[in-house]
Amino acid sequence: MTHDPTIDPNLRSWVEAANAGGTDFPIQNLPLGCFIVVDGQAARSGVAIGDRVLDLRAARDAGLFDGLRTDVLEALDAESLTPLFATGRTGLAALRRRVSELLASSFAQQGRVADVLVPMAAVRMTMPAEVGDYTDFYASIDHATNVGSMFRPDNPLLPNYKHVPIGYHGRASSLVVSGTAVKRPHGQTSAKPEGPPSWGASARLDYELEVGAFIAGGNALGHAIPLGEAEQHLAGLVLVNDWSARDVQTWEYQPLGPFLAKNFATTLSPWVVTLDALAPFRVPARTREATDPAPLPYLLDAANERAGGFGITLEVWLQTAKMREAGDAPVRLSQGDFTRMYWTMAQMLAHHASNGCNMRPGDLFASGTVSGPTKDSRGCLLELTWRGTEPLALPNGETRTFLADGDEVIMRGWCERPGAVRIGFGECRGVVLPAV
Amino acid sequence: MTHDPTIDPNLRSWVEAANAGGTDFPIQNLPLGCFIVVDGQAARSGVAIGDRVLDLRAARDAGLFDGLRTDVLEALDAESLTPLFATGRTGLAALRRRVSELLASSFAQQGRVADVLVPMAAVRMTMPAEVGDYTDFYASIDHATNVGSMFRPDNPLLPNYKHVPIGYHGRASSLVVSGTAVKRPHGQTSAKPEGPPSWGASARLDYELEVGAFIAGGNALGHAIPLGEAEQHLAGLVLVNDWSARDVQTWEYQPLGPFLAKNFATTLSPWVVTLDALAPFRVPARTREATDPAPLPYLLDAANERAGGFGITLEVWLQTAKMREAGDAPVRLSQGDFTRMYWTMAQMLAHHASNGCNMRPGDLFASGTVSGPTKDSRGCLLELTWRGTEPLALPNGETRTFLADGDEVIMRGWCERPGAVRIGFGECRGVVLPAV
Repeated sequence: MTHDPTIDPNLRSWVEAANAGGTDFPIQNLPLGCFIVVDGQAARSGVAIGDRVLDLRAARDAGLFDGLRTDVLEALDAESLTPLFATGRTGLAALRRRVSELLASSFAQQGRVADVLVPMAAVRMTMPAEVGDYTDFYASIDHATNVGSMFRPDNPLLPNYKHVPIGYHGRASSLVVSGTAVKRPHGQTSAKPEGPPSWGASARLDYELEVGAFIAGGNALGHAIPLGEAEQHLAGLVLVNDWSARDVQTWEYQPLGPFLAKNFATTLSPWVVTLDALAPFRVPARTREATDPAPLPYLLDAANERAGGFGITLEVWLQTAKMREAGDAPVRLSQGDFTRMYWTMAQMLAHHASNGCNMRPGDLFASGTVSGPTKDSRGCLLELTWRGTEPLALPNGETRTFLADGDEVIMRGWCERPGAVRIGFGECRGVVLPAV
Repeated sequence: MTHDPTIDPNLRSWVEAANAGGTDFPIQNLPLGCFIVVDGQAARSGVAIGDRVLDLRAARDAGLFDGLRTDVLEALDAESLTPLFATGRTGLAALRRRVSELLASSFAQQGRVADVLVPMAAVRMTMPAEVGDYTDFYASIDHATNVGSMFRPDNPLLPNYKHVPIGYHGRASSLVVSGTAVKRPHGQTSAKPEGPPSWGASARLDYELEVGAFIAGGNALGHAIPLGEAEQHLAGLVLVNDWSARDVQTWEYQPLGPFLAKNFATTLSPWVVTLDALAPFRVPARTREATDPAPLPYLLDAANERAGGFGITLEVWLQTAKMREAGDAPVRLSQGDFTRMYWTMAQMLAHHASNGCNMRPGDLFASGTVSGPTKDSRGCLLELTWRGTEPLALPNGETRTFLADGDEVIMRGWCERPGAVRIGFGECRGVVLPAV
């Protein structure tokens, strides 16, 4: 599939935990993130390996990156990955190759590297990048059809859906990293479509399971990104929880789209799994059905059709306050399949830039809720409980239509296939705090 | 109205051009902007006075700001106003008072100040602030009614309009400063609502006349901004041209709102007119009609009702390529009145933060197209030509439904009333380049 030695399935690390069966962070993964060890300390960038984090700045200062490009070395002074992303796919790949060499069983001077490893249990992860603009797409046709049939029963899937990778701008300021508690928002809601509204805490707080992509090198304003070049602009992927206040959304979203129903918080998993690490898990774009139109030429090329998808399995787990108190483990609410998206990440990006809109390093776009055709693959409670009409029964006797205060939502994602070493995204967690 | 000496109508400047009748920049204005004198030089912040720009960093280095707060002084090292905005209304007011003293006729050491003045004709203005997030509202009920009646003739004004200050997130990366040429974007358009679409240069490129507000001090995520405190978070106002590709918008905007129809470029006027300068021109919020519902309590307070509006007159002018070649002056297309907005800027901000969404210094929100009830007060071509069905006849024999390549759109805005000195916003300009 490729001759990149960093994804050789036979590669093993001298960090023992990286070789354990179910780890998210074998030496074939090497995701990037930002962390702090001591509160108040500036964040620094790192690479996850088994149960350790490689401190990239410390590694550089120890001379372990000597010979790498100057822009890559300087980017390690930043408190976010944005400057590193700005070095582009080639900068990221060069760093990755060196880190892989340092962590491989064959590396001779393991002690020098061990000195710049930090136990993962001792770090607090911070936002991976300084995000300029955040965009959210709507690329799961199963999600769009389900939601459309609730809000517009006569017209579930709009005529533009199979032509336009529908997206909208989200709020960058309220992006938070996994582990940040999320306060239930207040907002206007209305029992009747014609109003009048009332004001109060959202009673229909939901999560949305999504996959996000960070921009590596950007494009100049006025210059589109052709589909064939789109992936050269992608640094890597994360899990995204696009928290949504459904009652607020229903009342506010016409005619200009979701706003306060979404912008109170969006949670990201802290580890950015690079496109290089994902190379063994590329799959064809979703197969179009006979009745589906061909995409317009700017959204169509053979490479994207052949391998534009990502074979990622996604899960949502829930732990309620009562479960936590009783010592009960979280329960799985759904399992999704990222290969079923109607549009690929490359198509979303090419579309986004097709009018000349400029992307900057560290910009983020997300896929939209990842849902499948079966009930257990629906990526939000709106769909799982069919707008609250079919409550979920939890093993401890509790039920849920939407999220309750104290509920913690945990998202997980991983890739596996025969002949490749499984890699994972870690977790995207957030607990719901009561409104005040 | 206030005891702020900087808006005393009797105040005059020793910079003669600042005392001329129609100037936008008398000593009562003192708007903030960023500029460069020599290409390649880092931008620095300045204050407009008549036909001059006061170089704020040079003034500080010359000791003219001695005694001002440290955070204000340090903010003048930045290449944007964002750090200065972060000093809040009090920081901005302290700087303003000192600048007013330095430029007043009564100031003794005028030579020291003259040394740090630059001719306005010699500078190039740059983006005033580094904008984290950009939000666009829809606060003109005349605009919403006109546009609604074109897109939804049976349902022009949606039931939420008089309750919710409707807004949506825009793109921060493609904000540009006045004078930046704007390339006609490509996009998907469809003659029929059901498709199929085709791909090409937008044939319905439009401008939108808006007023934008920059955030001064922000709020923490999860903490709302009460209406009564909203203006303490506003640094000042600018003119905004929210360029729009109407044919792209029509096809893409359902169900999640405008996206590529807007994010190819948004132009800002370079001078930020502060709230302190606008104090003499405050007017009551729009009077509700008997049939209008009262806003929910979080959007209602007496101070906002009494003086939440801004008495700004706004104009759109057009100069086509043919006019420019013939030496013909621009023609005025419309004149708008910012007092007619259904929601005030304070209401928009209080609503935006009502769910805990966090604002950061330098964030920008715009009002939405400013239109009035009469044809000559419509703030975009979509309305002026009623979706292209009533072409505009220009004095030189040309006609327009939407913008042609080479057209330059020029927006102007100013405040005047008896007993106060007129202040203006300068210009917000942009010429349309052909698609490539």
